[in-house]
Amino acid sequence: MYTETFSQMKKQLGQLDKWLGTAAEHARGKSFDPIVFPALRLAPDQFPLARQVQICCDTVKLAASYLSGKPAEPQPDTEQSIEELQTRVRSVISYLDGFSAEDFAGAATRVVSQPRWKGEWMTGADYFVQHALPNFFFHLTTAYAILRHNGVALGKRDYLGAQTKRPPAA
Amino acid sequence: MYTETFSQMKKQLGQLDKWLGTAAEHARGKSFDPIVFPALRLAPDQFPLARQVQICCDTVKLAASYLSGKPAEPQPDTEQSIEELQTRVRSVISYLDGFSAEDFAGAATRVVSQPRWKGEWMTGADYFVQHALPNFFFHLTTAYAILRHNGVALGKRDYLGAQTKRPPAA
Repeated sequence: MYTETFSQMKKQLGQLDKWLGTAAEHARGKSFDPIVFPALRLAPDQFPLARQVQICCDTVKLAASYLSGKPAEPQPDTEQSIEELQTRVRSVISYLDGFSAEDFAGAATRVVSQPRWKGEWMTGADYFVQHALPNFFFHLTTAYAILRHNGVALGKRDYLGAQTKRPPAA
Repeated sequence: MYTETFSQMKKQLGQLDKWLGTAAEHARGKSFDPIVFPALRLAPDQFPLARQVQICCDTVKLAASYLSGKPAEPQPDTEQSIEELQTRVRSVISYLDGFSAEDFAGAATRVVSQPRWKGEWMTGADYFVQHALPNFFFHLTTAYAILRHNGVALGKRDYLGAQTKRPPAA
């Protein structure tokens, strides 16, 4: 199920790209500079939109890297505009395009650790379900919530994207 | 991975229960009535906290039911207080406690449909990853965001809960 879940996360990044585009259009329609958006936040001590997008991107990129053993280039978190954030999102979509089911064959039993865990580690299976998955959706949904709270016209369909629904039985 | 993911969603419901408790404490500390919280929302045309919690609960309950074939009692969405929302959350945790790995043995190939899909259907595998999982985390994180936006002291650790980290190698 790693492959299917990464495929879903890649789809969600595509939706995030669209929400950012909708936000930029919204700003132009209201005659304010879209550069306002990346600094908006829901609480003074919560990360702003730009950081939510960056962490969302890094969460899935690092998860794919840790669970496959394939390297991932660090990205410096310097994005300041909507367009730069979209470029960041698209870079991770491209990165995920380079994976296939075989890359995740041994994912569940890999040893995963992060520098700030001070030597502690998780199995790949635990790391994916307990850390990567909830964190990814946390930052994705928080980005959506910041836009929604600030008047961008988004709805559940924009969140979910296309679903593989099949036609009624004849 | 159905079992592991439902286990994670159950853990997240336990965290949601705690956030609601923290919100009630916050209200009492500030001398306002906690009944204010369930009606709060991030945008005038987005569901308030109570509905976010109800949909979050129903999403995982119905997913477990659809993917196992085990029945689930409908719940009428009448909760108005923090305590009633906590009771709803706990009822779903109890419901999930009744499942084991065998219940999800045939989940991936089940035919899943909902009344409003007008006969369209999804495979269990597609439904879980494309619909249930992203919807669950959407409503969970939106509930968190509403509380966070309104001053409740929550952080990422409260969101994630305990993780199965293992000690450094000797």
